[in-house]
Amino acid sequence: MREIYLDNSATTRVDEDTAAVAMELMTGEYGNPSSLHGKGLRAQERLDTARRQLAEALGCTREEVTFTSGGTEANNLALLGGAEALRRRGKTVVTTAWEHSSVLEPLRHLEKQGFTLRLVGPGPDGRIDAEKLLAAVDNDTILVSCMLVNSEVGSVAPLAEIARGLRRKNKLALLHCDAVQAFCKLPFSVARLGIDLAAVSAHKLHAPKGAGALYVRKGVRILPRTFGGEQEKGLRPGTENTPICCAFGHAAEKMSRRLDENLAHGRRLHEYFVNKAGKFQGGCINSPVDSTPYICNLSVLGYRSEILLHYLAQRGVFVSSGSACAKGARSHVLEAMGLPRARVDSALRVSFCKDNTTEEIDLFFEALQSGMEEILPAR
Amino acid sequence: MREIYLDNSATTRVDEDTAAVAMELMTGEYGNPSSLHGKGLRAQERLDTARRQLAEALGCTREEVTFTSGGTEANNLALLGGAEALRRRGKTVVTTAWEHSSVLEPLRHLEKQGFTLRLVGPGPDGRIDAEKLLAAVDNDTILVSCMLVNSEVGSVAPLAEIARGLRRKNKLALLHCDAVQAFCKLPFSVARLGIDLAAVSAHKLHAPKGAGALYVRKGVRILPRTFGGEQEKGLRPGTENTPICCAFGHAAEKMSRRLDENLAHGRRLHEYFVNKAGKFQGGCINSPVDSTPYICNLSVLGYRSEILLHYLAQRGVFVSSGSACAKGARSHVLEAMGLPRARVDSALRVSFCKDNTTEEIDLFFEALQSGMEEILPAR
Repeated sequence: MREIYLDNSATTRVDEDTAAVAMELMTGEYGNPSSLHGKGLRAQERLDTARRQLAEALGCTREEVTFTSGGTEANNLALLGGAEALRRRGKTVVTTAWEHSSVLEPLRHLEKQGFTLRLVGPGPDGRIDAEKLLAAVDNDTILVSCMLVNSEVGSVAPLAEIARGLRRKNKLALLHCDAVQAFCKLPFSVARLGIDLAAVSAHKLHAPKGAGALYVRKGVRILPRTFGGEQEKGLRPGTENTPICCAFGHAAEKMSRRLDENLAHGRRLHEYFVNKAGKFQGGCINSPVDSTPYICNLSVLGYRSEILLHYLAQRGVFVSSGSACAKGARSHVLEAMGLPRARVDSALRVSFCKDNTTEEIDLFFEALQSGMEEILPAR
Repeated sequence: MREIYLDNSATTRVDEDTAAVAMELMTGEYGNPSSLHGKGLRAQERLDTARRQLAEALGCTREEVTFTSGGTEANNLALLGGAEALRRRGKTVVTTAWEHSSVLEPLRHLEKQGFTLRLVGPGPDGRIDAEKLLAAVDNDTILVSCMLVNSEVGSVAPLAEIARGLRRKNKLALLHCDAVQAFCKLPFSVARLGIDLAAVSAHKLHAPKGAGALYVRKGVRILPRTFGGEQEKGLRPGTENTPICCAFGHAAEKMSRRLDENLAHGRRLHEYFVNKAGKFQGGCINSPVDSTPYICNLSVLGYRSEILLHYLAQRGVFVSSGSACAKGARSHVLEAMGLPRARVDSALRVSFCKDNTTEEIDLFFEALQSGMEEILPAR
């Protein structure tokens, strides 16, 4: 059966050339980068190259890039390590209500430890308002976290505006950004955005699962969460995962180089999708019109997400009802937007990549149409 | 130039069939195991298989295996997560003085937070004495950590004896074991050893860097260090690194199946090595006679380790001066054994794998001999 994979915000297929990089680091340059002999040094050089590639894609210096095992670890390190470093200066952390669980849960953990957590909701238009977020910041605030692209509806947050406002209001607080869904997909530079910490992940850009990176702006000090060797300047010890890190660097370079071309393709897909959805009985789009083209959240009123998802999957069409990490729980993102329950319960997240085609969108809607004809609407 | 890789305790070359498993999970079954559709479920099934393979190799149940990004994270999770769970019951942790940095450093971190850390040294014979270790345990002790195979000299600790003694003396304390250098190399079962927590790593057994696992005995509760999705039952959130975890499972199954055969080969190599070393002017072996055959620590009196290491590396012969994670710092392991400085400073760790040959050992000694002839002894 032909597979139509439209769940690229959950994870992506690894490109052949990127997988080949991982392969070579497994069986060829397999040395431990911390080993002092030539085999180790060559692995270290490869890791340095990957770090440079990531730095260039992020818009920062190599020294500002710390490899982690993924986006979740990068977010945790930024938030828990940042709060730990600043805990004597204040106890309030501010974030949005629709962050990914790898941001919300570490912040809730801080709340249990005596921090005050302020959650600022998006508007019903699916947008984060910079002023509203900044209004929650006070002198006790040490950390502000806001994702660049929302993982379920694709909204793009005004990070540069938030950064400027935060600098005026509170010079101490660190600004963290979960940039997992934005990295190498939308053009941005961490330096130009003016943020302090940014988390990115390999497996969202056709690189393998198992690596992420944290941008830590020069001069910003956060504390490690793991202890051991001196890898990653002691901020994240453990033998570096060279096959995946190098594949990550390779993919970041390639995806950055082709960002405009891919984005144009993504816009064509998105426009095509929205047009078809507009003609679809009972369909309504939950993403704002200016969202990233790579994500489109669609409710099919009267049909429960998981039933449709299952029906589509049986026909080889893969989409999701929300973040994969939430495993089918009701979307806190759509709830935060204040959408009516009927829309929340019938939402499908469709997410594109450079390899998708308009034909696949046609097949998605065909499958959806037959699903609606075969399945009785939920009461 | 022909490469003679005798640094298999630092890391190993990934076997072709194991790398092929990773490759297939990158480009074929690339789904996110948390996704609810077929593509995700198939990835989840593959991950379940890997977990079963690891459980069988460890001698435990699948539910007792938690995937991590490597040995360092597994050790940190066990020690910091274990201490956090028991912190209201006591504040003393006991370990040996020659643990890997990924055990010593998290315990030193606990010490900074008000815990009492007791370090018990090995004997000058390079052995851990169970009674001596147990003598440091009192009613306030909540955690005992002892590595199964020392990573620099290869000594095998009497874990079963320690476990039995600990149960008699203190029923509350958790017994953790860094089993990274033992897993799939020496025959053991975590259940039969009677330990509570054990850390293992993929890249020491010809599987890729980037995965480890923590055995958590059923009924033992430790707290997570990272927060986010519900992966790994919430103990270790983040999208599972399926390519590396599945390659890890595959390698664990294969290496377990061939454990005896590999061990016999390792013993032949070890015996051959020790015989040659015995005839070597100025050579003395720092490993106890009953160490794991896979590690042999040799001092070449009068020659500094890093000079020899460098000389050998230029001839394509790769060994180390100690743990790769220590990056050439003076060995705390040999110091803990109370060895004289001349031996500590001239130590080479030679570590074998299933693929090494006696011919490679000949070439190692030839290179070492010419090194000693060309290099002036250090004063």
